[in-house]
Amino acid sequence: MKRRLKLTVEYDGTGFSGFQRQTGTDLRTVQGVLERALKQLTGSEYVIVGAGRTDAGVHALGQVAHFDTESGLPAVRWPAALNGLLPPDVSVSGAEEVDDSFHARCSAKSKEYCYLILNRPQRSAIWHHHSYHVPQRLDLKSMAQGAGCFTGTHDFRAFSAAGSSARSTVRRVFASSVFAGGHWIGFRVAASGFLYKMVRLMAGTLVEVGLGRTDPVRIEELLASRDGCEKGGPTLPPRGLFLVRITYEDEQELLCAPEFPALNVFGSSLVRVP
Amino acid sequence: MKRRLKLTVEYDGTGFSGFQRQTGTDLRTVQGVLERALKQLTGSEYVIVGAGRTDAGVHALGQVAHFDTESGLPAVRWPAALNGLLPPDVSVSGAEEVDDSFHARCSAKSKEYCYLILNRPQRSAIWHHHSYHVPQRLDLKSMAQGAGCFTGTHDFRAFSAAGSSARSTVRRVFASSVFAGGHWIGFRVAASGFLYKMVRLMAGTLVEVGLGRTDPVRIEELLASRDGCEKGGPTLPPRGLFLVRITYEDEQELLCAPEFPALNVFGSSLVRVP
Repeated sequence: MKRRLKLTVEYDGTGFSGFQRQTGTDLRTVQGVLERALKQLTGSEYVIVGAGRTDAGVHALGQVAHFDTESGLPAVRWPAALNGLLPPDVSVSGAEEVDDSFHARCSAKSKEYCYLILNRPQRSAIWHHHSYHVPQRLDLKSMAQGAGCFTGTHDFRAFSAAGSSARSTVRRVFASSVFAGGHWIGFRVAASGFLYKMVRLMAGTLVEVGLGRTDPVRIEELLASRDGCEKGGPTLPPRGLFLVRITYEDEQELLCAPEFPALNVFGSSLVRVP
Repeated sequence: MKRRLKLTVEYDGTGFSGFQRQTGTDLRTVQGVLERALKQLTGSEYVIVGAGRTDAGVHALGQVAHFDTESGLPAVRWPAALNGLLPPDVSVSGAEEVDDSFHARCSAKSKEYCYLILNRPQRSAIWHHHSYHVPQRLDLKSMAQGAGCFTGTHDFRAFSAAGSSARSTVRRVFASSVFAGGHWIGFRVAASGFLYKMVRLMAGTLVEVGLGRTDPVRIEELLASRDGCEKGGPTLPPRGLFLVRITYEDEQELLCAPEFPALNVFGSSLVRVP
């Protein structure tokens, strides 16, 4: 009997050409690696559906994917079974059986991303692939003010890459905050969905704000203007970006949630900048 | 005029065959990479002296090295100049001029290491190269009790690898504690010096204690017995080990310091287990 399974997946994007399998190429993708492990485990061919198509170099702590299977293996057994077959840079952290109306991408109500910035004079050798280094001192207060401007329903055309195929550039941002601790700054944003390169353009704009080159008010102007792609930015590199979690709860609950839940990595050491 | 410079160096040990240059081989070492950058910068040949010879795969947040130079470049300029020439997995975080009696290894009064353990059912894709994964639940209280037994002056023969060339196996441990936060456990230890593989053997013993396979009292017995190498352990893999800092202050001050200073990475999110 066919069942639908939902997987939660963590990956290090450094060695991948993004999440999505690219048919007819040799490119290493997270989807390709997952589908190969599923075939090794069960002997059957699978096509998995991911919630978000992260770009090359972008990491995920809580990517979600679904697939249908006739295997009788209980859901709770899948993570360890798959992790024994997957390469070290992909790990399945959870699996559960879901209703067959569940769709990893279409049922998603909110996606949360975090962009990590290392703000100290010298770059880091250890976190090079997992953060973006800014040597100049950043003004956290104006960055937090700028991040706050993103909250709400806006046309994010100025924060989208040219050539995006999205029909509408209007998105709803549930929360948008700056967190800081030690030399680390994290820009966290949760929204109904994101346009191509949107988080990296938002983060790039906030760095300009933090450097004093852009006024936070400029973000409001950009959101109101709708006069073209990539007016915000620059686009920061993918290595600082983490897909943190996908939420499938009711939208009303998201709007009631006053604050981001704790972030497991660099966890409580980063505190929200008011 | 010759001056002596002290560098503080961070590196990701994953891509290195340890710190120490291995003459007559093609092995990539941190010392080799640093000496090449110094030559590129100044045109002269250098031999640097590191405080600790970390093994292949071991990381450093605060390795220290010294060398003599005739270059007139002010100390404060060296980090950025070298970081422009060094590969992404090595970064110089500080440089200062020191008296020519200073010796990175011989003047060191204390070295601090941290061994990072990820304690959750599934392994991590992102921190794979920077931690050791233990899927079974670990008992933090007995681990902390076990770690406390290491404090003081003891013969650490049981926690040294066979074939070590050290003349004496007696070392003084200034502090030894277990820190925890979220899924992370950090074993932090500061001592006058460490025997070959000592921290990884200590950490391995603490994991056995945390799993309930070894009683914390066994650590006291091992320290008292002196009956052979590697009686403790097992030796955990190098990827969880970080050389955190080298201290050159007076020993008396170290003994007065009641607590570890905050650790910058995974910083305040890890709290000491009493």
